[in-house]
Parts: sequence; C-alpha cells; structure tokens
Amino acid sequence: MTQTPDLSAALNREQANEELFALLRLPSVSADPTRTGDMAATAEFLRAKLGGLGFTARTEATAGHPIVYAERLNAPGKPTVLIYGHYDVQPEAPLEEWVTPPFEPTIRDGRIYARGSTDDKGQSYAHVMGVELLLSQGELPVNVKFLLEGEEEIGSPNLEPYVRDHADELKADVIVISDGSRFGPEIPSITYGLRGISYVEIHVQGASRDLHSGSYGGAAPNPINALAQIITRLKDDQGRVTIPGFYDGIDELTDAERQMWADLPHSDAAFAASIGVSALPGEAGYTTLERLWGRPTLDVNGIWGGYQGEGSKTVIAAKAGAKVSMRLVPGQDPERVTRLITEYVPTLAPEGTTATVHPLHGGRPFKFDLNSPYNHAANRALHRVYGRDAVFTRAGGGIPIVAAFNDLLRAPVLFVDMGLNEDALHSPNESFAVNDYHNGILTSAYLLQELGAPNTGE
Amino acid sequence: MTQTPDLSAALNREQANEELFALLRLPSVSADPTRTGDMAATAEFLRAKLGGLGFTARTEATAGHPIVYAERLNAPGKPTVLIYGHYDVQPEAPLEEWVTPPFEPTIRDGRIYARGSTDDKGQSYAHVMGVELLLSQGELPVNVKFLLEGEEEIGSPNLEPYVRDHADELKADVIVISDGSRFGPEIPSITYGLRGISYVEIHVQGASRDLHSGSYGGAAPNPINALAQIITRLKDDQGRVTIPGFYDGIDELTDAERQMWADLPHSDAAFAASIGVSALPGEAGYTTLERLWGRPTLDVNGIWGGYQGEGSKTVIAAKAGAKVSMRLVPGQDPERVTRLITEYVPTLAPEGTTATVHPLHGGRPFKFDLNSPYNHAANRALHRVYGRDAVFTRAGGGIPIVAAFNDLLRAPVLFVDMGLNEDALHSPNESFAVNDYHNGILTSAYLLQELGAPNTGE
Repeated sequence: MTQTPDLSAALNREQANEELFALLRLPSVSADPTRTGDMAATAEFLRAKLGGLGFTARTEATAGHPIVYAERLNAPGKPTVLIYGHYDVQPEAPLEEWVTPPFEPTIRDGRIYARGSTDDKGQSYAHVMGVELLLSQGELPVNVKFLLEGEEEIGSPNLEPYVRDHADELKADVIVISDGSRFGPEIPSITYGLRGISYVEIHVQGASRDLHSGSYGGAAPNPINALAQIITRLKDDQGRVTIPGFYDGIDELTDAERQMWADLPHSDAAFAASIGVSALPGEAGYTTLERLWGRPTLDVNGIWGGYQGEGSKTVIAAKAGAKVSMRLVPGQDPERVTRLITEYVPTLAPEGTTATVHPLHGGRPFKFDLNSPYNHAANRALHRVYGRDAVFTRAGGGIPIVAAFNDLLRAPVLFVDMGLNEDALHSPNESFAVNDYHNGILTSAYLLQELGAPNTGE
Repeated sequence: MTQTPDLSAALNREQANEELFALLRLPSVSADPTRTGDMAATAEFLRAKLGGLGFTARTEATAGHPIVYAERLNAPGKPTVLIYGHYDVQPEAPLEEWVTPPFEPTIRDGRIYARGSTDDKGQSYAHVMGVELLLSQGELPVNVKFLLEGEEEIGSPNLEPYVRDHADELKADVIVISDGSRFGPEIPSITYGLRGISYVEIHVQGASRDLHSGSYGGAAPNPINALAQIITRLKDDQGRVTIPGFYDGIDELTDAERQMWADLPHSDAAFAASIGVSALPGEAGYTTLERLWGRPTLDVNGIWGGYQGEGSKTVIAAKAGAKVSMRLVPGQDPERVTRLITEYVPTLAPEGTTATVHPLHGGRPFKFDLNSPYNHAANRALHRVYGRDAVFTRAGGGIPIVAAFNDLLRAPVLFVDMGLNEDALHSPNESFAVNDYHNGILTSAYLLQELGAPNTGE
C-alpha cells in the first residue's frame, strides 16, 4: 500500500470544533413541522461549506426537507466515493432532562453535548473536515460525492425517490456511511449489518366519549387497560414476539458469527451498569450481542391515554394509543411484518374495545460482505488512527436508505463509525467525545487515501 | 302531610338560567394550580348571592381553595337542613373535543353545555334558586345552612378538617346533597349508597436514561412494556382485581337489594348503546347494575411514557407512569386498599425494572338507611315534581366528604339527584337538561317544605 504522511499535525482542531458548534446550533428536528425553516437553514449551511471547498454543491427541494448534494471529481482513473450522512436530528424531548440546552453545544469533560453531536451531524461533518484536511495537502486522492439528507430520523420518505431519479449522478464505486457507534472505546469497528424496522401506531377505542369512572367503572370498557393487554400479548414469557409468521424466513446467525461475537470483549454486567439496570431481559436462548445485532425484537416507544395532568381525574378515557416498533433482521421484510401486526392486533382487542394499527415507517434489514476490498481499506485506515485492527460487528439500528443504495446504485456500502453507544444518541444529553470527533476526521482522510491506493481493486 | 301550593308558576326560569350561566363562566378547575384566582372568584360569587338572599354568608380560606358557608335560621322549632355542594369542576381536557368552549355555557337541544353544568354547579345552584323561590312566597319552612366547597374533584383534602373545627356551627338534622345522577329520564331516584375510592399513581423505571431502540432494543428493559404487564396483571380473566386481600371484609349485596335492582327498568343493550360500545365487560357473576353500584373495580385513568409527539421516535424510554383508581364498596377501607396495592405492584415489576406506587387520594364507601323519615320526605317532594315515587339506587361514584359528615356531624345524609348519566359529567361536552335544572329547583323547594312538615320526625 502507499503510505502517506501522518495528517494529525495538520488538523486544525480549534476550527473543526467551531464549525461543528455552528452546525449543532441549528435545531434541525425533522419530525417537528414548526422547524422547516431551521431545516432549510441547516441544508444551506452544509451546501455553502462544501461549495467553499471547491465542490459543485446544491440543495434540492423534496416533498419534505431538502437534500444537500456536492461533488468534486478531480481524480481521473481513481475510484469514486459517495459519502452519505444526515443533518436532521431526533426531537429533543424531554427537554427538562438536558443539563445544557440541546441546541447550545457545550464541552464538558472532553465531550461535546448537543442534540445531533454524534447522530449524525458530528459524524457527517467529520467527513467534511476530513476532505478539507486532505485538500490542505493537495488534491483529493479519489473522486468524492456527498449526499446529506434531512429526513433520516423520520424514515427517509423522500430519499429513495431522489436516489432513483439521480442514480447516474450518484454512481459510485463505494458508499461510505458513518452514522453508528464503534464497538467500544479505543476499539475501531466496521459494521457489516443493520437491523431493519417496522414502526406502527396502535389505536384503541372504548366508549364514544370519556366517562366518569365512578358512574361507569365496572361496566365500561377501558381502552387503556385494553391497550396494556394488547401490548402484553405481543410478546410471550420467553421474550419472543407472538405475531403469527413474525420469525418466518429469518437468516439464522451462523456459528462463525456467533463465535466471532462471543470472542469480543463484552461484559453483560458492564453493559447493564452503563444504562443503570439490574438485568438485560430479552429473547431466551441468545446472548446479549446476538439479541442486539442478530435477532428481531419489539418495543413500545411511546404510550398515551386519559388524564396525564396534575392531580387526579376520575375518568375512563374513550381512547388510548401507543407507538410500537419492531427491529428486523435479514430475511424479514418490513412491509410483510407491518401487514402481519396490522392483521394481528385487532384480534387481541378485549371485549368492548376495537384496536387498529397505523403504519408510520419501515426500513429493510441489511447484511454486507465481510471480505470486500473496501473493508480491507477501511481496516488499514482505522489501523493508522487507532494502532490496531478493527472488529467486525453489526448494528442494532438501521439506516433506512442503505438497502435502496444497494438496490439502486449497485455499490457496496462501507460503515465506518466514529461514535460510541455511551454518546446517548436519541436521548437527553446526547454527546460526542471531542477526541472521537477528531479521530473521525483523521479516519475519513486516511480512508479516502486508502481507497485511492492502487491495491484497492474493483 | 301539609300540602302547599304548586310553586312551578312562581319560578322565574329566565333568571334562573342567566344566573347559572354567570356561575358556569367561571373556570373553577380545582386541579389546575393556575386557576386559584378563578376559584376565589367563584366562591365570592356564591357568597354574594346567598348574602343577597338574607343569609349570613362568608367565604373561609383553607390550605387549598376557599369554602363558602351561609345560614338562615329563622324557623324556630323546625328542623335544620344542611345543603352541601361543590363549586369546583373537573379539568376540561381534552379541550379539542368540546363542541362549544367548556366555560362559555350554551343551550343546544334543551341542554346547557358547560363544564360543571351538572357536576356540581348546576345541581348546587338549583338549591340556591329553590331557596329563593321559597323566599318569594314567605319565610323558609326550615332552618337552612349551605356548605359549598371548592375541592371535591381533588378529594376534598381540606373539608374534613373544616367540618371537624366547625361541627357545632354545621350541626343539622339532615344533610342534603345533590351531586349525582337520577336513575333515568322521568324517573326520580334517591341514592342510599356511594362507592369509595383509592386513587394512586404507578411509576415504572427502566434504564437511567432514554435509549436508542436500535442500539438497545432486545436487551434493555422497556418500562412501558413493563407498565403494560403490571396493569394487565392487576385483574384476572374474570375481571377480578388480583391484589391480595382486596376483597376481604366486603359487605356482600343482600338478596333484597339484588332483587330491587333486578326490578329496575334497565337494559344492558341500551346502556351499552348510550356509550357507543358493543359489550359491558366486568366482574363475572354480577349484573351490570350490581357491578356499578355494589362491586369494587379497578381502572387506569391515565397513562404516559416515551414519545407522544408527531412522527416516529425510535426511543426506549427511561420511565413510564399511570394513574390508577379503585372503586370501593362498604366493608373496604381506602387506606388499607392503598397500602395493599402499594405493597403489591412492586412485586409485579418485570426483570430489570422497578415499580413504585404513589397515593393521590382516597374516599370511604358509604351506605345509608333506606327507611329514614328523610327518605320518605324526599320521596313526597319528588312525587310532587315527577308525579311518581322514587326508586332507590346506589351510586358508582363517591363524595369524599359524606363519610366525614356521618362521623363528625352525626346527621343522616339524603341524596336527591337532579342530573342524568347522559349529562357526560367529567367528559367533554358535559351538559345539564334545562328541564332537569328547573325540576331540581322545584325539588329543592318542595323538599324543604316536606322536611318542615310536622310528620317528619327526628
């Protein structure tokens, strides 16, 4: 391989932090309809930055939030690398649990606290800064395209059509995504699989109006009690999902994968302690890592009904609802699973109530070739940053667009993650270690160098 | 009995409506800490009205909302009647379901729509207007005391101490309360029992922070799923509450009561249709009326946890909660039941979660002598209004202070209800039929006459 000089000394860490902070101050919550203006401002921020780096850059309107596309194609004969990221973030609720405001980035104990600091503004921007770092040394060693969307946290409803319409423009030899977590501190990792998702809302209707629990309690159907029964019946006492056909067609984990994961430095006790729990309940017969990476599951993500205010209101509500998501593994099809739960839940409604399912979004599970030349290039780049080989893992979460990339662009996808689970993505006080951000910038620069090296053949 | 002239012609219905509307416009929500000013204004409205009728009237501050007390004792040798009511109302949520705003009373199809129209401003004010009607004919036939509180909907935390401190002033031969529903249209009824209540909040804790359902789903405890399990386990498949000891010591219904209620004109189908449900689930082995009036039950009154906003947030919440109330019958002690559920719920918490119970309020169940002379007087008064005898029922709801009246004032309590269940008390679009309001005024006036008649002995 071509060895290239250490870029660490050339990295302006102060400037890298300041620019990321400016990006994090923009409250780009894609799920919040009142923030469309902030979404557009965030897209423009990224377009302007990439344009300033000599990229041909534009924002493109969609039915939802805009997409940022930029390209710099000055490496004839070299591979083309498409870097995907998203500039939208999760809602900040519950706001009162944030130590410092979610959109006022603050460094405490070596960590950048802000919504989006790691998921995915921090990791996306590390690639932007990685490119800038390489440009400070000369031309880029590969052709680079950036595709930054604003709807990842709401299921990327408009990205797949965009990719279909712009398949030629987006054509690449490999797609790089940094939107997850490394296996652990000091441990670089390459992710070769993602779980998919089926996300639905369950609505339960009881009486046609709210009722006085004194006048009606004992005879009126209670939709909250009914919803609790339905939720309870969706899993059995072995932690298995009870939806008929749910497990059909799953690619079972191989012995090699189970062994590889069993060899990873993982401690259930430490994992449980990291989230402050005394146990890690789940599907019987599988280890924690197997349950997180290789097995499907079902969780209620939100629930509501009746009186939630101060004091005590003696009411039997007319309706109740819950948001329920199922994580899926290769072999499961989100549309099929959504159909299965949509047919099953109404049959669980207790006497006097009706239950309906309303799909919110789905994402396909994904598994990728462990031994591609791109994985080897990524391993070399990570070795230069961390001084050790990467471990090969899967991620419990999904990135809705990955399967579409695979189908429409026919390019392999390479996951090089920079953050850690302890970054608390999707939670109050989300953070990104300053050092992980800077290592991410170096990883990006080295990765583009390694992908441009002769021995990374097609 | 002394027959007295028909007062119907003397009732100024227009004025009666206008005054009630003014009272209903005051948003006296006792559970809402932002409305303490409105509570004081409502108390003053009633004090001023009763003062204007020649009563010695005052409002008295409490640790919570003020109490209105007024008395007119100009009938030496005649019984003293204490009329209890409450001027506070339930919270108006969910506001969006009101056809017209809850605090802008509106007459549609012969019904007064407003929060508190029937519970209990309308029924309380019918007594005020009943007294005014009698005064338009001369002096009151009995000594009358009004006790109007502002905390009934939050469990009357300050009324019992007030009654204890003012037991001499409040002394009466009989206490009259109109705060419930008649058995049915055209059917006058006298209520001789009330259910009690134990109202608690259940909190479930999972991880120490919200988690990404992708990164943690399959291993992290989910407090919403756990709460659903706990709620489901609080009742068995026969509709019986599973809390150990819950049914101990209950006064079982007598054959006479079960027969009396079986003879009432009741249709399960019509009752179910009136609330828009296809079934009336409840404790096996009891009729609907028995379950509503004579059996305890458990209902979830509110539930919350995780993401309730727009779109889909892939989060596993750190905590979830629910408001749960149990309706109690004679023989059950609210404090004991609250202790039982507080001890039981933590044992139901699934692996990796913890559950705690936080008492909100309690109220004692109550049963009253069917054959008192006061019931006979009330029956005569009702006969003069409705042209038929009253039926004797119990109420599924409770009035927290009733047991205290019985204990501290040692006076029998007489329930003469004016509203109907279809008034939708505690619900959006609460209403009170204009005709029921006017009949209530006449009932109040005739009742005071009958209670003053010689043959109503002590």
